[in-house]
Amino acid sequence: MPKAIDLNCDLGEGFGHWSIAEAPEDELMEIISSANVATGFHAGDPMQMNRIAKLCREHSVGLGAHPGYRDLIGFGRRRIDASADELVSDILYQVGALREFGRLHGVPLQHVKPHGALYMEAARNENLSLHLVETLRRTSPDVAIFCMDVSETYAVARRLGQPVVREFYADRDYDDSGSIVFTRRAAPPSPEKLAEKCLRACLEGRVESVTGKDVAVGFDSICFHSDTPGALAIGRAIRKILLNNGITIAPAAMVIGKN
Amino acid sequence: MPKAIDLNCDLGEGFGHWSIAEAPEDELMEIISSANVATGFHAGDPMQMNRIAKLCREHSVGLGAHPGYRDLIGFGRRRIDASADELVSDILYQVGALREFGRLHGVPLQHVKPHGALYMEAARNENLSLHLVETLRRTSPDVAIFCMDVSETYAVARRLGQPVVREFYADRDYDDSGSIVFTRRAAPPSPEKLAEKCLRACLEGRVESVTGKDVAVGFDSICFHSDTPGALAIGRAIRKILLNNGITIAPAAMVIGKN
Amino acid sequence: MPKAIDLNCDLGEGFGHWSIAEAPEDELMEIISSANVATGFHAGDPMQMNRIAKLCREHSVGLGAHPGYRDLIGFGRRRIDASADELVSDILYQVGALREFGRLHGVPLQHVKPHGALYMEAARNENLSLHLVETLRRTSPDVAIFCMDVSETYAVARRLGQPVVREFYADRDYDDSGSIVFTRRAAPPSPEKLAEKCLRACLEGRVESVTGKDVAVGFDSICFHSDTPGALAIGRAIRKILLNNGITIAPAAMVIGKN
Amino acid sequence: MPKAIDLNCDLGEGFGHWSIAEAPEDELMEIISSANVATGFHAGDPMQMNRIAKLCREHSVGLGAHPGYRDLIGFGRRRIDASADELVSDILYQVGALREFGRLHGVPLQHVKPHGALYMEAARNENLSLHLVETLRRTSPDVAIFCMDVSETYAVARRLGQPVVREFYADRDYDDSGSIVFTRRAAPPSPEKLAEKCLRACLEGRVESVTGKDVAVGFDSICFHSDTPGALAIGRAIRKILLNNGITIAPAAMVIGKN
Repeated sequence: MPKAIDLNCDLGEGFGHWSIAEAPEDELMEIISSANVATGFHAGDPMQMNRIAKLCREHSVGLGAHPGYRDLIGFGRRRIDASADELVSDILYQVGALREFGRLHGVPLQHVKPHGALYMEAARNENLSLHLVETLRRTSPDVAIFCMDVSETYAVARRLGQPVVREFYADRDYDDSGSIVFTRRAAPPSPEKLAEKCLRACLEGRVESVTGKDVAVGFDSICFHSDTPGALAIGRAIRKILLNNGITIAPAAMVIGKN
Repeated sequence: MPKAIDLNCDLGEGFGHWSIAEAPEDELMEIISSANVATGFHAGDPMQMNRIAKLCREHSVGLGAHPGYRDLIGFGRRRIDASADELVSDILYQVGALREFGRLHGVPLQHVKPHGALYMEAARNENLSLHLVETLRRTSPDVAIFCMDVSETYAVARRLGQPVVREFYADRDYDDSGSIVFTRRAAPPSPEKLAEKCLRACLEGRVESVTGKDVAVGFDSICFHSDTPGALAIGRAIRKILLNNGITIAPAAMVIGKN
Repeated sequence: MPKAIDLNCDLGEGFGHWSIAEAPEDELMEIISSANVATGFHAGDPMQMNRIAKLCREHSVGLGAHPGYRDLIGFGRRRIDASADELVSDILYQVGALREFGRLHGVPLQHVKPHGALYMEAARNENLSLHLVETLRRTSPDVAIFCMDVSETYAVARRLGQPVVREFYADRDYDDSGSIVFTRRAAPPSPEKLAEKCLRACLEGRVESVTGKDVAVGFDSICFHSDTPGALAIGRAIRKILLNNGITIAPAAMVIGKN
Repeated sequence: MPKAIDLNCDLGEGFGHWSIAEAPEDELMEIISSANVATGFHAGDPMQMNRIAKLCREHSVGLGAHPGYRDLIGFGRRRIDASADELVSDILYQVGALREFGRLHGVPLQHVKPHGALYMEAARNENLSLHLVETLRRTSPDVAIFCMDVSETYAVARRLGQPVVREFYADRDYDDSGSIVFTRRAAPPSPEKLAEKCLRACLEGRVESVTGKDVAVGFDSICFHSDTPGALAIGRAIRKILLNNGITIAPAAMVIGKN
C-alpha cells in the first residue's frame, strides 16, 4: 500500500481563444500535485504554457510536458505514421518549449508525458520508447517519464534507468491486460464511484476491468482529465478519499523518491 | 578597427520537404561562426533544428535561436498585430525548443535573433524590445540578443545590461539612418563587391547608403542570408577578405567578450 | 422603416474538438435567417462546415462564407500585413471551400462576410475592397457582400453593382462615425435592452453612440455573435421584438431583393 | 492500343516562399494535358492555386484537385488515422477551394486525385473510396477520379458510375500486383528509358515489375512528378515518344470521352 501518491491532470489544452477544460485551471491546481501541460502541437499555446508554469510555481505543483502528435484538428488523438526520429524530435521541441517557461518562473521540469495517440503508440512501440528514453537519458536524466504499468515505455525506462512514473486512470476503463480502453458509457460513474475505484487501486492494487475481472495495477500517480465532465468534482472526491485514508498526495518526483 | 568579427547566417529555413537555402548547410558551417536557426513558426522544424544544432557543435559555431512571427506562409515577413505579451511568449517558446536541441548536443545557446518582420518590429517598438529583454534578463542573462546598431533593441539591451551583438548586413542595402532597407536590384552586386563593402565597414565603420551618402555603422557581427543567390560564394568572399586583412572570425559571444 | 430584416450570426467558429459558441447551433438556426460560416483560416473546419451547411438547408437559412485572416491562434482578430492579392486569394479559397458543402446539400452561397480584423481592414482599405469586389463580380455576381454602412466595402460594392448587405450590430457599440468599436463593459446590457436597441435602429434608423450621441445607421441585416454570453437569449429577444412590431425576418438575399 | 492518352503532373506543391518543382510550372504546362493542383493541406496555397488555374486555361490543360492529408510537414506522405467522414470532408473542402479558382478563370474542374498517402489509403480502403465516390456522385457527377487500375477506388467508381481515369506512373516502380512501390535506386533511369517504358505500356499494356516480371497495366493517363529530378526532360521525352508513335496527348476528360 502506497503511503504517498501523485495526482496528475492535463492542463492548458486549449488553443488561442479556445478552451476545453471543465474547470478553471487555478481551481484544479489546488487539487493536483502534478500538471501535464499541453505544448502546442495537439493543443496548448505559449500564453497558456506561460500561465500554467507560473501557477505550478505558486501551487508547488510538478511541471510536466505533455507533447502530442502535430495534429491540432485531431487533438492528438489520431495516430500518424511517422518515424521514431521524427516523433522524438517533435517531443524534444515541445519539451524544450515548456522547460523555457519553467525557467522563467523558476520551476524545474519534473516529467514528460506523451499525449493521447502518441502515449498509446509509445506504450506499444518498443522502438519509439527506446529512442525516446535514450534521448531523455542524454537531455534529462532527472526528468521522469509517465506511462502505464503495462507498456513498452515502462519496460524501457526501467531497463535504461530513467526515472519513471506509472499512472492509474481514474476516468478511463481498463481491459483485462491492464491497459486503458476508450469506452462510451450511457451514464458516467459519479465522482464518488471514481474516487472509490482509485482508493481500492491504492489499497489493493486492483481494478475491475470492462469484462468484470479483477486486474492488477501498479502505479505512482493517479490521472484524471480536465475535460471529463465534472472534472473538478472528480478531482476533489479523489483527493478527499485518499487523504481520509491516510494517503499523502505529493508531486510525482517526490513519490518516486527523485529530485 | 575590430580585431575580431562574427560571421552569422540564417540556417534551417525550410519546413519538412521544403528548403530555401542556396547551399548545403554543412558547407555554410565551414564559413560562418554563428548560426541563426529557424525555430518553427515562420520556418524550421524539429528535425532540421536537431541537425543544425549537431552541426554547430561539430563546427564550433555559435548556436542562435531565430524566432519569427507565427506565419509559415508569409515566411515571417508580414507584421502581425499582436501584443508584446503574445510575441515574447512566442519567442520564449521557440527559444526553449532550440535550446533543447543544443542540450542534446552539448551546445549552449549563444544568442537570440528575431526573424524578418519581428526583427524590424522590435527594432522600432521600444515596448516590445523592453518586454523581450526584461524576459531574457530572467531566463538567459548570458545569451546575447542580435540587432541593428540603430534600433530600440540595442538601446534597451545596453540599458538593461543584456549581452548584445550589433549586426552589419552584407547582402542588404542601407538607408541614410543606418537601417537596412529592402530593395530590388536589376543586377545584384558580385560576392567580391559585397566582401569589399564588409571590409570597408570593418575598417572604416562606414557604408554607402542607397542615396549615395556615407553612413556610420557599428557592429560586432556580419550577416549574410543562406537564401541570397550565390550565398556560398558570398560567404567565402567575405571570409577570405576579412582573414586576408588580419581580421579574426569568431563566434559572437567571443567577439563581445562574454561566455 | 424596413418591412423585412435579416438576422445573421457567426457559426462554426470552433476547430476540431474546440467550440466557442454559447448555444447549440441547431437552436441558433431556429432564430436566424442567415449564417456566417467560419471557413477554416481563423476558425472552422470541414466537418463543422459540412454540418452547418446541412443545417442551413434544413432551416432555410441563407448560407454565407465567413473567411478570415490565416490566424487560428489569434481567431482572426489580429491584422496581418498582407497584399490585397494575398488576401483576396485567401478569401476565394475559403469561399470555394464553403460553397462545395453548399453544393453537397443543395444550398447556394448567399453571401460573403469577411471576419474580424479582415472585415475591419476591408472597411477602411479601399484597395482591398476594390480588389475583392472586382473578383466577386467575376466569380459570384449574385452573392452579396456583408459590410457596414460606413465602409469602403459598401461604397465599392455599390459602385460596381455587387449585391451588398449592410449590417447593424446588436452586441457591439458604435462610435460617432457609425462604425463599431470594441469596448469592455462592466455589465453587458440585457437581451431586452439589446433587442430594444435593434428595434429602434429598425424603426428610426438611429443608434446611441458610446459618447451618447444619436448616430444614423442604415442596414438590411442585424448581426449578433454566437460567442456573446447569452447569445441564444439575445437572438430570441431580437427575433421576438421584431416580429411583435411587424417586421419580417428573412434571409439577406430576400431582404435586398436578389436571388 | 490507346489512340489518345492523358499526360498528368502534380503542380503547385510549394507553400508560401517554398517550392519543390524541378522546373518552372509554365514550362511543364506546355508538355502536359492535365494538372493535379495541390490544394493546401499537404502543400499548395491560394496564390499558387490561382496562378496554376490561370495557366490551365491559357494552356487548355485539364484542371484537377490534388487534395492530401492535413500534414504540411509530412508533405501528405504519412498516413493519419482518420475516419472516412473526416477525410471526405477534408477532400471536399480542398476540392471546393480549387474549383473556386477555376471559376475565376473560366476553367471547369476536370478531376480529383488524392495525394500521396491519401491516394494509397483510398486505393486499399474500400470504405473510404465508397464514401468519397458517393459524395462525388452528388457534388460532381462529371468530375473524374484518378486512381490506379488495381485499386478499390477504381472498382468503386466503376460500380457507381463515376467517371474514372486510371494512371500509369512513369517515374515509379511497379510490384507484381500492378501497384506502385516506393524504391530507392542508385541511379534513376534516363528520361529516354522512362519514355520507352511508357510507350511499351501504351502499346502492349505491360510493364516490368521490380522482380523482373511482366505485369499488365490498364490506364488512360500517364503521370510524372514535378519534383522528380529531371522532371522537364522526362516529360518532354514521354511527350515526344508518344507523339512520334501516333498517340495523341489530350486532357483526361477527352480521353475517357466525357465532358
